[in-house]
Amino acid sequence: MKVAVLGATGFTGEKLVDILLSHRQVDLTYISSRTEEPILYSKLFPRFLKKTDLKCEPHNIEKAAALSDIIFLSLPHTVSMEYACRFLKLGKKVIDLSADYRLSDSALYKKFYKVDHSDKTNLKRAVYGLPELFRSKIKKADLIANPGCYPTSMILALYPLMKESLIKAEVIVDSKSSITGAGRKAVIDYHYSNISDNLWAYKAFNHQHTPEVIEILKAKTGKSLNLKFVPHVVPIGAGIYSTSYVSFLKKQTFSKVKALFQRYYKDEPFIRVNQELVKLKNVVGTNFCDIGFSLDETGKFGVIVSCIDNLLKGAAGAAVQNMNILLGIDEKTGL
Amino acid sequence: MKVAVLGATGFTGEKLVDILLSHRQVDLTYISSRTEEPILYSKLFPRFLKKTDLKCEPHNIEKAAALSDIIFLSLPHTVSMEYACRFLKLGKKVIDLSADYRLSDSALYKKFYKVDHSDKTNLKRAVYGLPELFRSKIKKADLIANPGCYPTSMILALYPLMKESLIKAEVIVDSKSSITGAGRKAVIDYHYSNISDNLWAYKAFNHQHTPEVIEILKAKTGKSLNLKFVPHVVPIGAGIYSTSYVSFLKKQTFSKVKALFQRYYKDEPFIRVNQELVKLKNVVGTNFCDIGFSLDETGKFGVIVSCIDNLLKGAAGAAVQNMNILLGIDEKTGL
Amino acid sequence: MKVAVLGATGFTGEKLVDILLSHRQVDLTYISSRTEEPILYSKLFPRFLKKTDLKCEPHNIEKAAALSDIIFLSLPHTVSMEYACRFLKLGKKVIDLSADYRLSDSALYKKFYKVDHSDKTNLKRAVYGLPELFRSKIKKADLIANPGCYPTSMILALYPLMKESLIKAEVIVDSKSSITGAGRKAVIDYHYSNISDNLWAYKAFNHQHTPEVIEILKAKTGKSLNLKFVPHVVPIGAGIYSTSYVSFLKKQTFSKVKALFQRYYKDEPFIRVNQELVKLKNVVGTNFCDIGFSLDETGKFGVIVSCIDNLLKGAAGAAVQNMNILLGIDEKTGL
Amino acid sequence: MKVAVLGATGFTGEKLVDILLSHRQVDLTYISSRTEEPILYSKLFPRFLKKTDLKCEPHNIEKAAALSDIIFLSLPHTVSMEYACRFLKLGKKVIDLSADYRLSDSALYKKFYKVDHSDKTNLKRAVYGLPELFRSKIKKADLIANPGCYPTSMILALYPLMKESLIKAEVIVDSKSSITGAGRKAVIDYHYSNISDNLWAYKAFNHQHTPEVIEILKAKTGKSLNLKFVPHVVPIGAGIYSTSYVSFLKKQTFSKVKALFQRYYKDEPFIRVNQELVKLKNVVGTNFCDIGFSLDETGKFGVIVSCIDNLLKGAAGAAVQNMNILLGIDEKTGL
Repeated sequence: MKVAVLGATGFTGEKLVDILLSHRQVDLTYISSRTEEPILYSKLFPRFLKKTDLKCEPHNIEKAAALSDIIFLSLPHTVSMEYACRFLKLGKKVIDLSADYRLSDSALYKKFYKVDHSDKTNLKRAVYGLPELFRSKIKKADLIANPGCYPTSMILALYPLMKESLIKAEVIVDSKSSITGAGRKAVIDYHYSNISDNLWAYKAFNHQHTPEVIEILKAKTGKSLNLKFVPHVVPIGAGIYSTSYVSFLKKQTFSKVKALFQRYYKDEPFIRVNQELVKLKNVVGTNFCDIGFSLDETGKFGVIVSCIDNLLKGAAGAAVQNMNILLGIDEKTGL
Repeated sequence: MKVAVLGATGFTGEKLVDILLSHRQVDLTYISSRTEEPILYSKLFPRFLKKTDLKCEPHNIEKAAALSDIIFLSLPHTVSMEYACRFLKLGKKVIDLSADYRLSDSALYKKFYKVDHSDKTNLKRAVYGLPELFRSKIKKADLIANPGCYPTSMILALYPLMKESLIKAEVIVDSKSSITGAGRKAVIDYHYSNISDNLWAYKAFNHQHTPEVIEILKAKTGKSLNLKFVPHVVPIGAGIYSTSYVSFLKKQTFSKVKALFQRYYKDEPFIRVNQELVKLKNVVGTNFCDIGFSLDETGKFGVIVSCIDNLLKGAAGAAVQNMNILLGIDEKTGL
Repeated sequence: MKVAVLGATGFTGEKLVDILLSHRQVDLTYISSRTEEPILYSKLFPRFLKKTDLKCEPHNIEKAAALSDIIFLSLPHTVSMEYACRFLKLGKKVIDLSADYRLSDSALYKKFYKVDHSDKTNLKRAVYGLPELFRSKIKKADLIANPGCYPTSMILALYPLMKESLIKAEVIVDSKSSITGAGRKAVIDYHYSNISDNLWAYKAFNHQHTPEVIEILKAKTGKSLNLKFVPHVVPIGAGIYSTSYVSFLKKQTFSKVKALFQRYYKDEPFIRVNQELVKLKNVVGTNFCDIGFSLDETGKFGVIVSCIDNLLKGAAGAAVQNMNILLGIDEKTGL
Repeated sequence: MKVAVLGATGFTGEKLVDILLSHRQVDLTYISSRTEEPILYSKLFPRFLKKTDLKCEPHNIEKAAALSDIIFLSLPHTVSMEYACRFLKLGKKVIDLSADYRLSDSALYKKFYKVDHSDKTNLKRAVYGLPELFRSKIKKADLIANPGCYPTSMILALYPLMKESLIKAEVIVDSKSSITGAGRKAVIDYHYSNISDNLWAYKAFNHQHTPEVIEILKAKTGKSLNLKFVPHVVPIGAGIYSTSYVSFLKKQTFSKVKALFQRYYKDEPFIRVNQELVKLKNVVGTNFCDIGFSLDETGKFGVIVSCIDNLLKGAAGAAVQNMNILLGIDEKTGL
């Protein structure tokens, strides 16, 4: 099977190329970026020396389509949909890592991404690429909307609790993320001296990932979520750690909650529910999502902690997991 | 005025020595630790070379009392109270940086610190050393219980809101702290490779600082606080960042909340309320507490972010601020 | 093929377990440590949850030998030789990651490791496990002495220059290393707050890796090396970066030096010589050694920079590369 | 005494403003940058809230001169000399933190800074602002060329050895620096993810600070220095650590070398020579230069390690030390 990556020079695109190069059941045949001339990828990123001789080319839909069966789009929001619809027309499968097909409600899209959705037709075909919730649909999808990094960490933490109607609608999520989530940008805020030994909250209650979490959980559980989400930037090389505060409708015990999570996720290859309060470093560099929890003395209030590598389970890793599902091969291949 | 520091080799003690050495209105005359023989402090900590020739001595209450008027106790919890009572008997003023005199309820003390309080008499005399709330009492105190680092960040964030009866009792605080808050200990969990690029929640809902926050806010506002507190360790050299989630009893606006905080703190030398969402690095190395906030669309829910340097405003800096108040000099001296 | 790891709880042992678990052509059947009771490895290191159900057992030579064909010893110096000789007697192949069989001169061993060598017989059979220099011997070895981390970075940088008699004997090497090279130890010097934002030289001119470099290069090039080696600890999660200063016997040019290195290493799967001054991060997490260089205006003096991941090409990665050679399979398998 | 800072928004300028604001014997009356409109400095840098109400203004030589007696120029190389000459004409004292007046040889200036020197007249009046070597000249200077950060660390390490004719001309210096030395720039190379856990050599043998070291040491010792200088970027928040490799003309001992350094620097307020191999963190946040050393077995070769905070002793701290000397007050004031 042949695959292409458009947008191979962002953090996510680079990670995707890395995984695909060592994946035993696919060939990476085409990679592109906003470059004007083809340029050796290992020239752009010397860490790919002796790993690939691929050139990074200017985006070219026809060429990509001619060379590949599955197309990964690691393009900026609002750009991606212009490419996706054309690849779909050419009969290609598309795994889109942008936000463009995550929200089925295009009004919400406009509200959070400040632009009209230009491909509402395909929006309806898109399957949300969170395997733990949508595996059977992913298998047959033409267009997979790879989840956002924050949403992955939150949805996996809240899904069993909402599905079982255990918690109240108001949930507070305090997330901590590596700055790599913001993309490879030359801005002074991301300068080493502004991130190192620093820490801050941003976009409190209005981060663009908020509606995604609410919509997906509604679709799968029928429950409304009143999400209060505040993300933070912390000085780590990779990862997201989400701390979700929930009120239980009835008194719970630690062992009941743990049993519930284990039941939901015991067969999931990438979800681990075996510890109390999890540590981020255990998932960095992997496609795992680790989930832990603790209840207060009353048994009516609890905290769920969930963590992922934002560029892997939160982006490129999930994309490859989705591809594996599409191909009908072992989901863990290459991950 | 002559001062002594008992417990000069912990992170807090070292910081205290540093501040006191460059303080123009006091002389640091005595420092001690669990050392067996007197040893040059600059031998223990080469960064004090050409700054002091003081020797760090084995603890000796009589000697410390003979040489000093004000005694800083930077000793472990449960040890401190054994020293404090003896210095008080000798007529010395004591600023205690441990938890031993923070909780007026000795039953709570036993619950969280696992030991009977051995100095209940002096417990009644102790004044909680948070200048912004207890300045007039601190002026006349013999025994000052310097606040915990987490409580300082939380109390300053919640006090105006509770005093004005603006918020519901249930408040969630998600704090992020430097590992220095755990003391200078040779344990594998604090090894560089376990902290760097890592992050985790700990002691969810049962951290020993929880009752301190509740008790102090009750004493000053008359209101009960149903505090859900979850601290986290993050890879930063210094600092605490507390994110407090509050539900307003009535709809609020950003400008009203900001005006309230500014009114409460405008004359406070070390509290700054001028930004939206604050960044930790602005307070690292200083005695400031920066406070910011954001409200959600409904105006009924908000987040307060407050940050301090855990070893300064959260410990040694606050102790010196308290000393300055005791001495009746400019509170900012040496800070 | 079945393999065992003795000493599975150090940084190197853990990395080795990680690589071997995902290696497609071997089965990891036995792991051990100084534990008193068998304990799930994923209990010790939660990052191995859903990756292995192996238990870490107390060291047991008979059991390890019964279960495995190739034995990795990731034990402390001086302990390793006691185990190696017994496994060899049982007809097992041994890959030793300690320093015990690196120096063929047991007097040098005593000088630097402060103990008599207790297994001089096998010392003679040991092959130095640097594939780039000893591949053909490794193929047939029973006992492989896996190189030290610093020596790997230095020998690969100096070998072509010495072999071609291009440089004077006196070479200065200034190395920078992650603290993980010192092992997983609970000492206050390795506390996060002592490593982060810090940097220092140590063991100047008397680091125990010095004689290893000299002896190996003498053996392979016939030349004497007057090595002035000063290692430094820097705040990085992984890696070694060695900066070697050399005086050329005759005037050289950048392109001649580059061509020489490329000639020596063009077929080496893990050595890359395509850049000017290399960056550490390109090799972190890989088994690569990147080499770069620069000459001064005179053409008679130059600097060679070489970097590796100290736990991979500098330890566990090299050990697996050696195993692959022993097994006659693709050297890159699993790496 | 009134002082001004032109270029108050770079790393060095910001540090300078910080020191001058808390300096008890000067008033900071004017600060400027490339801003188009005056803007509150605390708006640009919130960490200055409640510390200053100064506005950062567009550069205005007349206004600065009207308000101040001593002018600090923290401007880019080649820009600074255009301002310095005009302030000198107005009778002001100038402390220039750029490289513009460090090299008395304007041909060297052109070679390394790629531009003709436009103020050769004043170049002759400039005094090199390294107090330990030029204190008496600094006292009477009109124009002080504040040293470069790397040169400060190197010159202080080599001066006693060269002055006493103890070492050969060829000296190798391997320096490790915080990226803050490169200035506050929004470039992708300085992004957190490119610095953290990374490390690299750059500008080997052709860094622009090289001639400065050679020229100053020649001027003060009469000796030629054949300097081989290779700087490295390491992931630290602040600081420079220079490792200098020297060959002694005659066999030396550790105690003789130590005694020599102590004799030269015992009265220096900011130089400490009391340890073997020094650690960077002891000088971070201070104006100290710590110097240590080690000799090899032969006694004919040694390493000198010297470290400073690159923005303090390496820039803003040194500038204030120079100002204190100019003013005839205690050199340590404000530092």
